Amino acid sequence: MPKIISTGYTVFIENNIAAEINSFLKSANGNYSGIFILVDENSLRYCYPRLVEQIDYFKDAELIEIESGEESKSIEVCAHIWSTLSEFGADRRSLFVNLGGGVISDLGGFIASTFKRGINYINIPTTLLAQVDASIGGKTGIDLNHLKNEVGVFSTPSAVFIDPAFLQTLDKRQLLSGYAEVIKHALIADQPSWKKLSRTKPGLSSLSGEMIASSVEIKNRVVRQDPDEEGIRKVLNFGHTIGHAIESYSLRLNPSNPLLHGEAIAAGMVCESYLSHKACGLQESELEEITGYLLKTFKKVPLKNMDKKELTALMKHDKKNEKGGINFSLLSAIGRCEINNVIKTEVIAEALDYYVQKVL
Amino acid sequence: MPKIISTGYTVFIENNIAAEINSFLKSANGNYSGIFILVDENSLRYCYPRLVEQIDYFKDAELIEIESGEESKSIEVCAHIWSTLSEFGADRRSLFVNLGGGVISDLGGFIASTFKRGINYINIPTTLLAQVDASIGGKTGIDLNHLKNEVGVFSTPSAVFIDPAFLQTLDKRQLLSGYAEVIKHALIADQPSWKKLSRTKPGLSSLSGEMIASSVEIKNRVVRQDPDEEGIRKVLNFGHTIGHAIESYSLRLNPSNPLLHGEAIAAGMVCESYLSHKACGLQESELEEITGYLLKTFKKVPLKNMDKKELTALMKHDKKNEKGGINFSLLSAIGRCEINNVIKTEVIAEALDYYVQKVL
Repeated sequence: MPKIISTGYTVFIENNIAAEINSFLKSANGNYSGIFILVDENSLRYCYPRLVEQIDYFKDAELIEIESGEESKSIEVCAHIWSTLSEFGADRRSLFVNLGGGVISDLGGFIASTFKRGINYINIPTTLLAQVDASIGGKTGIDLNHLKNEVGVFSTPSAVFIDPAFLQTLDKRQLLSGYAEVIKHALIADQPSWKKLSRTKPGLSSLSGEMIASSVEIKNRVVRQDPDEEGIRKVLNFGHTIGHAIESYSLRLNPSNPLLHGEAIAAGMVCESYLSHKACGLQESELEEITGYLLKTFKKVPLKNMDKKELTALMKHDKKNEKGGINFSLLSAIGRCEINNVIKTEVIAEALDYYVQKVL
Repeated sequence: MPKIISTGYTVFIENNIAAEINSFLKSANGNYSGIFILVDENSLRYCYPRLVEQIDYFKDAELIEIESGEESKSIEVCAHIWSTLSEFGADRRSLFVNLGGGVISDLGGFIASTFKRGINYINIPTTLLAQVDASIGGKTGIDLNHLKNEVGVFSTPSAVFIDPAFLQTLDKRQLLSGYAEVIKHALIADQPSWKKLSRTKPGLSSLSGEMIASSVEIKNRVVRQDPDEEGIRKVLNFGHTIGHAIESYSLRLNPSNPLLHGEAIAAGMVCESYLSHKACGLQESELEEITGYLLKTFKKVPLKNMDKKELTALMKHDKKNEKGGINFSLLSAIGRCEINNVIKTEVIAEALDYYVQKVL
């Protein structure tokens, strides 16, 4: 199975990842004064036992448990975990382990990067979304007043360990949420993958280590070219300007059961494919092809109940924006993405209407 | 007046610094979408008016005011300022300005470095302590449960602007607090400066731009060799292992009127000079010389009322420690400092006793 070299660290993709983690920890022999593992109730139940069984170093580690879900990406949870690290005597040579989905790696990466001005951490992503997206790229962060990742840092883990077997622990909704990013990676940079994806029914059976690796590889290629998001990296934002706004809105509306990231992004990709057609040269037939597949695959988001003005205001908060316009990364064709398309509010409203009205 | 080149940015030292700030902002012409200035009641009253009078770019800036004092370096204040930035539409091209003492640059540097994963900031230090210490070196941070700088990042400002004239706005206690770092810089790396310093009475009259510059230069030289504090930079920690513990203790004991940083560090330097004599080859005559000067210059800290066990526990929290021993940077002679001296608790207790019992 492949090893992918990223910006200063390696992504290992392997069935039975424990062996890789073991040899990583062994090679740092004695360099860590202690290990702290961040989990949620799911990764604690389904993933931790399989690892601790095979990884001696994990047996003495301190476990820090948070509730699953975006609501844990808060300042309060951060403060609590920082205090816990203090109390348990974590020092600059402690290792922090993020075992879980995107919430765990976003939150845990931020905590580790700021505790005593930064301690080492590794990511062991256990959801498809985290495996192909959140766990690499050096972005960490927490939410603020329901604004996603409003506070955070760019920082890189010491290593990332991906085990496709962990995906068997996911329910269908979680798995699909990750699929949205797999689809995005194909749409922005890999037309052949799109052809393959759009012909298969998403699900565990169609997922393989190779497929995960090829999706990680696309993201990694982009990130390596532009680690600080000053230019080309913005292609990863396709579907996310509107998608993030929908996600933030949903979190505010229904904090206990918001949309999953991928569900919001799937809707965002439909809207932004419409914008791609209107403003970036995406052919109508390709727009139909994308929209058809996404609406078939993802349950429709009740966008109708959302206030357009509110959504637009949320888009303006996107970190990639600069004062003035709303900036989009759009498709000029399937497999090709162009950054820095500034789109007017009226056209964005049209795109939202397109999504609401579209029926298969 | 000198310009000092640090790790990726310049420190300007100039009477009437407004002209330098103006030309810095002009050269970034249009690159900033907005300016946010962090002040406390003192810098707002004494420093801001003198700058805004001459700097047009500051006229439209948003002012964010915090209360002066270490208590503002809290998670709650951070959260409040992050929210303020969000509300006022700060984006990735906003400029954050830290106008004030060390609390402002520590806190503001951390806020700017984490807001939307990092926006640009400049430091305009207005206290002696901030000018010669906090404003350079790339350390930012906030306190947690009375542990100093327990959370933070290494990050660098875009530039630092030092105006010695601002020191006229300080009361004597503030000025002396900064002197402690000037003394430390001489003790660890500049024997001739020590000779000069120890013969003059500290005060405004003995302070000059050149003296500030030479103190900044020492710190800068050390920081450039080791920006991430992996080795030699620890020399800056002389007096700070015990000093920080005293400072944290005092903050916990008396949150509304704790010791100033330099007052705690001066006591810490006496104790650690004793350790230097015991464990690092500092001659008794030099120990006497240092102790004599420090006790003459700084009011004695009521260490007797502090619990030694508590103080030692606080020392163990120092970021430079690794599990096991307490790590000190000690003088082998005036002007020469050695890192990584691990000292036993009993000897530390002796050093505290030495301070308590010492009379001039």
